[in-house]
Amino acid sequence: MLLGGSRMSLRLRPIGHVVTKASHEALRRGSAVSKIVVDRRLVGGLEGLQDFSHIYVLFWLHEVPKGSRRLRVHPRGRLDIEKVGVFASRSPHRPNPIGLTLVKLLSRKGRILTVKGLDAYDGTPVLDLKPHDSRDSVPRPRVPLWCKRLERENS
Amino acid sequence: MLLGGSRMSLRLRPIGHVVTKASHEALRRGSAVSKIVVDRRLVGGLEGLQDFSHIYVLFWLHEVPKGSRRLRVHPRGRLDIEKVGVFASRSPHRPNPIGLTLVKLLSRKGRILTVKGLDAYDGTPVLDLKPHDSRDSVPRPRVPLWCKRLERENS
Repeated sequence: MLLGGSRMSLRLRPIGHVVTKASHEALRRGSAVSKIVVDRRLVGGLEGLQDFSHIYVLFWLHEVPKGSRRLRVHPRGRLDIEKVGVFASRSPHRPNPIGLTLVKLLSRKGRILTVKGLDAYDGTPVLDLKPHDSRDSVPRPRVPLWCKRLERENS
Repeated sequence: MLLGGSRMSLRLRPIGHVVTKASHEALRRGSAVSKIVVDRRLVGGLEGLQDFSHIYVLFWLHEVPKGSRRLRVHPRGRLDIEKVGVFASRSPHRPNPIGLTLVKLLSRKGRILTVKGLDAYDGTPVLDLKPHDSRDSVPRPRVPLWCKRLERENS
C-alpha cells in the first residue's frame, strides 16, 4: 500500500489538558498528583474509566522546541550514560513529540481525573487516555544495563 | 496557561510503516509477526533498541473513517458486553486515532524491525517507538469484570 510515507501529515486535537502545581523535579520523580481536565464534549468517553486502577496518558510534549529534536540522546539527560537512539529512550526530543506515561488513576469526578505519576507539565495538551490491562504487562522484560542502573538509583 | 484547548491543531508525520501479510484475525489475536520499516533518515534513532525485549508501537489508525468515531463503544465490538466510554477501551474509534500496542521485539536489521503481537494492518503509518521498562509494569492492575471475562475467553 502506498501512503506517501513520511510526507503524509496527520492532525490531532487535544482532548483535554493537564493541571498541576507540582515542580518539574516532582513530576520527573513520578510522585506528583496531577489533574487531567477533559473537554466537556468528550465526557461521555470517560464512562467506566474509573474501573481501571491504571491508565495510559498520551500527551503532546508542547514545551520541547522543534529545533531540539535529535536522533541520539543521553538517557534521561545523563551525560555519564552513553547516547542511545531516541527510539530506545523515553526522551521528549522525538520526531513526533508524543509522551506516554502509565499513571495511577486516583479518582474521577465528571470530566476531571486525578492521577498519580504523570510527568507532564502544567498546561500540557492531552491526546488520548487508554486503560491498562493484563496484555500491557510483561513479567520480566529485558532491558539494557543503563536502564537497570537508573532503576537502582531511583529506587 | 492558555492553549486554545481543543481548537489547537497538532501535526505528526509517520516515522515508518507496518508491513505484514497476516490476516486481520491473526492481528487481532496478537499472534502475528510483522515488520516495521523505519524512514531511512531516522535509522540512527533505533540504536540500542534491540537491547529491549518489548517496545511500545504508536501508530495511526488509518483505516478508521473519521465519521465512525464515537464516545461509547462495545468493548472489542462485542455486542454482548455493555458499552463503555471510548477512553475506557482500546477501540480504534477514538477522537485522536492513535493506536498503542506493546509488542515483542524479535530482531532489528538496519531500519527493519521484526515484532510479534502488533495488531496494526499492513501499511499502517507508525508514529513512534518507545522502550518498555520496569516503570511500565503494574503487578496487579485492577480491571473491570468485562475485561477479566475477555481475558479468560482469550487465554
